[in-house]
Amino acid sequence: MITLSSDFGSPYPAAMKGVILQRCDARLVDIAHDFPRQDVRTAAFWLREILPTFPPAVHLVVVDPGVGTNRAAIVIRAGSHALVGPDNGVLVPAARRLAANDLTVYEIEVSDPDSATFHGRDVFAPAAADIYEADLEGLSRLPWLTPIDEYDALTFPEPELTEDRASGSVLVVDGFGNVITNIPGEVISELDRVAVRTADGDQTVPVVHSYAHVSPGDAVVTVGSHGNVECAVNQGRGDDTFGLGVDDSVTLSFKR
Amino acid sequence: MITLSSDFGSPYPAAMKGVILQRCDARLVDIAHDFPRQDVRTAAFWLREILPTFPPAVHLVVVDPGVGTNRAAIVIRAGSHALVGPDNGVLVPAARRLAANDLTVYEIEVSDPDSATFHGRDVFAPAAADIYEADLEGLSRLPWLTPIDEYDALTFPEPELTEDRASGSVLVVDGFGNVITNIPGEVISELDRVAVRTADGDQTVPVVHSYAHVSPGDAVVTVGSHGNVECAVNQGRGDDTFGLGVDDSVTLSFKR
Amino acid sequence: MITLSSDFGSPYPAAMKGVILQRCDARLVDIAHDFPRQDVRTAAFWLREILPTFPPAVHLVVVDPGVGTNRAAIVIRAGSHALVGPDNGVLVPAARRLAANDLTVYEIEVSDPDSATFHGRDVFAPAAADIYEADLEGLSRLPWLTPIDEYDALTFPEPELTEDRASGSVLVVDGFGNVITNIPGEVISELDRVAVRTADGDQTVPVVHSYAHVSPGDAVVTVGSHGNVECAVNQGRGDDTFGLGVDDSVTLSFKR
Repeated sequence: MITLSSDFGSPYPAAMKGVILQRCDARLVDIAHDFPRQDVRTAAFWLREILPTFPPAVHLVVVDPGVGTNRAAIVIRAGSHALVGPDNGVLVPAARRLAANDLTVYEIEVSDPDSATFHGRDVFAPAAADIYEADLEGLSRLPWLTPIDEYDALTFPEPELTEDRASGSVLVVDGFGNVITNIPGEVISELDRVAVRTADGDQTVPVVHSYAHVSPGDAVVTVGSHGNVECAVNQGRGDDTFGLGVDDSVTLSFKR
Repeated sequence: MITLSSDFGSPYPAAMKGVILQRCDARLVDIAHDFPRQDVRTAAFWLREILPTFPPAVHLVVVDPGVGTNRAAIVIRAGSHALVGPDNGVLVPAARRLAANDLTVYEIEVSDPDSATFHGRDVFAPAAADIYEADLEGLSRLPWLTPIDEYDALTFPEPELTEDRASGSVLVVDGFGNVITNIPGEVISELDRVAVRTADGDQTVPVVHSYAHVSPGDAVVTVGSHGNVECAVNQGRGDDTFGLGVDDSVTLSFKR
Repeated sequence: MITLSSDFGSPYPAAMKGVILQRCDARLVDIAHDFPRQDVRTAAFWLREILPTFPPAVHLVVVDPGVGTNRAAIVIRAGSHALVGPDNGVLVPAARRLAANDLTVYEIEVSDPDSATFHGRDVFAPAAADIYEADLEGLSRLPWLTPIDEYDALTFPEPELTEDRASGSVLVVDGFGNVITNIPGEVISELDRVAVRTADGDQTVPVVHSYAHVSPGDAVVTVGSHGNVECAVNQGRGDDTFGLGVDDSVTLSFKR
């Protein structure tokens, strides 16, 4: 199985599929092709959340603002998965979530691709197909892969947790407008209400198990499917109501 | 085969696919993941039109404004198809269209899902995969399924038809801006022109077999691919020209 | 393998898939379903670029402003590929790129489809499935296919190239805002800078191998993945910066 992720929109991903299917008959599964353009961090967040739901697979990821420069093309073997993409950190959080203690990173030797602007088609898709065909056991025998020790990492900001407060920031906003923070869900697990401080001011909202426990339009804090605190609105948009976007600060205050 | 439908946008559907592919190797086919958010009725309409084009399959449907509340999770066996989703009516029109006289409805026993906000991933996707593996013959032997008699239905408004008039309403507007009404196509089958009354006033337009029988920009009434009367504009948007949206009233007047 | 392309948006493509899967078990691959509505030329451009990346396949293409009129439905065998769609030119550039010297064109006999507005579901999808089942060798034995000599072609405008100038026009703008011209990349291959004349005036910009060779927000000219000259902005939109849209004129001036 090969999964595909990119910020390409349409129709470029189809060219990657054509190239792959010339070389192998893997099942292809799209993760997303509408990651925010050239936003390595947002793509890295979603891949970390989604790739671990999959069985062992080759994961082709192309969010690549540095295409055509001297940034390396890499493969990360993470347990029984292989991730293929640019060396800009986009693969790293997912690889660590998949198998933090069983990672090997390889650089792909890139020889004169057809284009300097579409390495998804000309470099990464052929590499993903050939890695699929080689199988993970054959990875170390591919002559165009060289194990490396240095590669770009990417980490998400850590929240600050005290007895009566959790100070964090917004990692991403999903398509529903749910504001996903870096604050672990455990901090609100026994609360009924919590005070949310943002640049817009303070508001105290219910802590609920799911959106529909309040009336449509009402703001809540809940634990999202990723395990983090989420600021949301039942049948509405949390980002608008809380005035929050990516990287903004959020502080939760509570008395236990 | 498992089809997938939701209002999740991107990238959440990929997590459902990962979970399914951990459990079985079914072919996966997306119906749509951009149904209007939390709009059970629009999704139900499209599923009724589209699912019957498919061979026997498991149909996973997650348009679920009540996720995390006590609404039930259900399976409807409809002839040789199985539909899996929330008990909010979204599955019912499609199930009746598939096999009105051969329906069995089961409640899914849900035991402590990982999240309260993403039952698509944590409840419905595993259920769909396990039902696919069990096959329809095995359905009644799955210990976590209980046949039930009571479940939420969902019906579309019926038009009022007389000798010289059809009064109905708008079921959905498609992506082209075609206004799909609940008026059966037969009422206009022998007409050349028809008077369309909306809240905006009256206009008399040609009845045509297809859009391109008039000039670009011209309004028409036609019978759409679903068999209902459609108010449309050749290479334009019927919703704008007729001033019509979902649930609005439409009356067609004709002399036979 | 059957690929699917359309301007249908969502959820209509799923109905074509259902119909196909009733008739055969081909692998299905989406090229795109968000081609600009009824824009035959843009779809033809992208298909010419993308279909040749695929192994032999049946390519179902429905961008069909004339649906339900007397425009023919056709099949083009191009080498070991078959393209199925309306006779409006949309298939032709791709067919020629695939196998210019090995083309056979057939008209599909269409007998009373279920709808006059959705030939994608009622005419083209069944034809594509049956052609897939017949295999290319069996094509000439399908009784509902008749070889024809006359069909709608579609050509893209040719640029005018002189010693010190290339005058062309914009073929399409991609989702990143990159402006793809009809000027062959070779004309800028040895240049460092080039003067770009548009209706908005002149600007001289760097010629680069890829976007990231300049600072974010800076304008460049580069050779895109299709081999043509592209007017682009690193991490920005070339169409906005150059004031260019489809069909606009572009002249590059250079001293060798």
